[in-house]
Amino acid sequence: MSLAPDVLHIELGERSYPIVIGGALLADAELVTRHVAARDVLVVTNSTVGPLYLEQFTASLPGKRVHAIALPDGEQHKSLEVLGRVFDALVGARLNRDGCVIALGGGVVGDVAGFAAACYQRGVDFVQVPTTLLAQVDSSVGGKTGVNHPGGKNLIGAFHQPRAVLADLETLRSLPPRELIKYGLIDDAGFLEWIERHVESLAALDTAALVHAVRRSCEIKARIVAADERELGQRALLNFGHTFGHAIETAAGYGEWLHGEAVAMGMLLAADMSRHLGWLADADVQRVHDLLRRAGLPTTAPAIGAARALELMGMDKKVLQGRIRLVLLRRPGEAVITGDYPADALQRTLQRHFEGGAA
Amino acid sequence: MSLAPDVLHIELGERSYPIVIGGALLADAELVTRHVAARDVLVVTNSTVGPLYLEQFTASLPGKRVHAIALPDGEQHKSLEVLGRVFDALVGARLNRDGCVIALGGGVVGDVAGFAAACYQRGVDFVQVPTTLLAQVDSSVGGKTGVNHPGGKNLIGAFHQPRAVLADLETLRSLPPRELIKYGLIDDAGFLEWIERHVESLAALDTAALVHAVRRSCEIKARIVAADERELGQRALLNFGHTFGHAIETAAGYGEWLHGEAVAMGMLLAADMSRHLGWLADADVQRVHDLLRRAGLPTTAPAIGAARALELMGMDKKVLQGRIRLVLLRRPGEAVITGDYPADALQRTLQRHFEGGAA
Repeated sequence: MSLAPDVLHIELGERSYPIVIGGALLADAELVTRHVAARDVLVVTNSTVGPLYLEQFTASLPGKRVHAIALPDGEQHKSLEVLGRVFDALVGARLNRDGCVIALGGGVVGDVAGFAAACYQRGVDFVQVPTTLLAQVDSSVGGKTGVNHPGGKNLIGAFHQPRAVLADLETLRSLPPRELIKYGLIDDAGFLEWIERHVESLAALDTAALVHAVRRSCEIKARIVAADERELGQRALLNFGHTFGHAIETAAGYGEWLHGEAVAMGMLLAADMSRHLGWLADADVQRVHDLLRRAGLPTTAPAIGAARALELMGMDKKVLQGRIRLVLLRRPGEAVITGDYPADALQRTLQRHFEGGAA
Repeated sequence: MSLAPDVLHIELGERSYPIVIGGALLADAELVTRHVAARDVLVVTNSTVGPLYLEQFTASLPGKRVHAIALPDGEQHKSLEVLGRVFDALVGARLNRDGCVIALGGGVVGDVAGFAAACYQRGVDFVQVPTTLLAQVDSSVGGKTGVNHPGGKNLIGAFHQPRAVLADLETLRSLPPRELIKYGLIDDAGFLEWIERHVESLAALDTAALVHAVRRSCEIKARIVAADERELGQRALLNFGHTFGHAIETAAGYGEWLHGEAVAMGMLLAADMSRHLGWLADADVQRVHDLLRRAGLPTTAPAIGAARALELMGMDKKVLQGRIRLVLLRRPGEAVITGDYPADALQRTLQRHFEGGAA
């Protein structure tokens, strides 16, 4: 993979930063040190990614004082308790305000490390080195960080923009393409068709396909985020599939369903509810179903019951004055946020999918 | 106390907010509800203040869904563990993004509640009802929130501006005037003289004197903060006394020395070091000493040894690239931040005060 890295600039005034997309970035000491100005760094990784890349990455930080902490792997460890261990490591390393926290891993590592960087000394620099597709196209853009609470996902967190994101495509071991599908569905029908044509080459980790997919996804997200950094309006479009997905994850217990699987299932639920509203045709929902299936994602919800699902959706962050607002599809490639729908459409969707007899 | 409340507007663009200063504010339902827009609120108080004011304050929030949590009283409870209890209360109350956290208490309550508000759902509204002078003139301006870590004070936190501050002078039970003295020393020689003339009426909680002192202190702090919201430069002037004070607090264990006592002693140390640099005269240091003594503040440091004090100062946040920057006095009423001093001047100051034979 000898292509020159592609660079996408996220424009956020004084908090602007580059996303570097390419192969073998971790081993490129010149590139890494160009994006990590601090002398003292804490690398936060996990027990799976650390053994694979930590040594190599540390070698790309010559002359710096490098500390590291490996978190246990898994969404169930995205907790206040694990966050506390990162604080202990920061204090133990005597990191100063001009130090830097680097996240080397997937979304959980990025969320916990970024939140620690946001709070340690009320904010130190943060660099993301995402090693999963989800982290490369989602966690890396938008500045959301945080941890889960037993009462709900991502209930505790902060907005904290990274100084740089280094997305090394060679760290991808597999490609769960749920995020790509999401960006196609909510914003870009052309990209959706491109994904349908390239899902096999993406799954085979073809470099050229990956560069296009990661860059296009980051562009879509960055455009939405730049217009709405604090998630007051349109940014909620990015939560497509999340309200339904959170209910699935919470009911099943964190770690039982992977976050990406739950949200993928949530996208199918949202598509089906959009059909109930007359916005999508049967064929559109079938298209979402088929694409998820080809991508190896689940298309059957757990049989937790419609009532329990509704209750779990009620604790979701996207409730506004007691009203459940949902991200639904007007058509493939165009999502809307709305609380203005017949309660019946939601009920029928939940009953169809959560009562154990789903399509 | 029937004076109309005085209102100071803190100008921070879209995060501007009023500080209302007056008597009997807690019992004024019209005033309280004007500043608390949310329907759902969590009042965070402590085991000392709660029994005195919580019932009365709750009565000033008619028609709202009011939850409350009382934290244990004391600086030693400004911890991640207590913060976790506030998160549990927020989740338990099912507070939404449009809910509001209200801090009813002193600096510890404000710092913990404000930090919880900064992180819960990545930020909800926050209203301060400070019941100590320190909280009224310091914690209420500047947006600093956070908790301590066993490795250092305020190491974990966030910047989060309140929507409003309601400073009810009738809640003041005593007046530790350390903060007032600080503002006089660092910024306003005229205010310093005013304090020297009024220290007894302030200690007697005279209303007119309090309104002037609280307002003038908030004005000085607000002017410094507005120019430097994220503490990159001049804002560090507000830390006058803190670097020395943190060493005292940490060595003694949180809760042994009150924060205000430690910082007051730190101001005397900073004044004495300024004398070693030839900036203050002996008489200036004596003046600081006498004012602290009249105000009932300590003027003798604990005998922890100069070496230990220096080590503890090294972990302080205000270290920049390994260099200890200090806030010192050019003259009474004018502070400077500097790392450019002979190491000898610091050593001699620490030896004089921390070796058990201090003045």
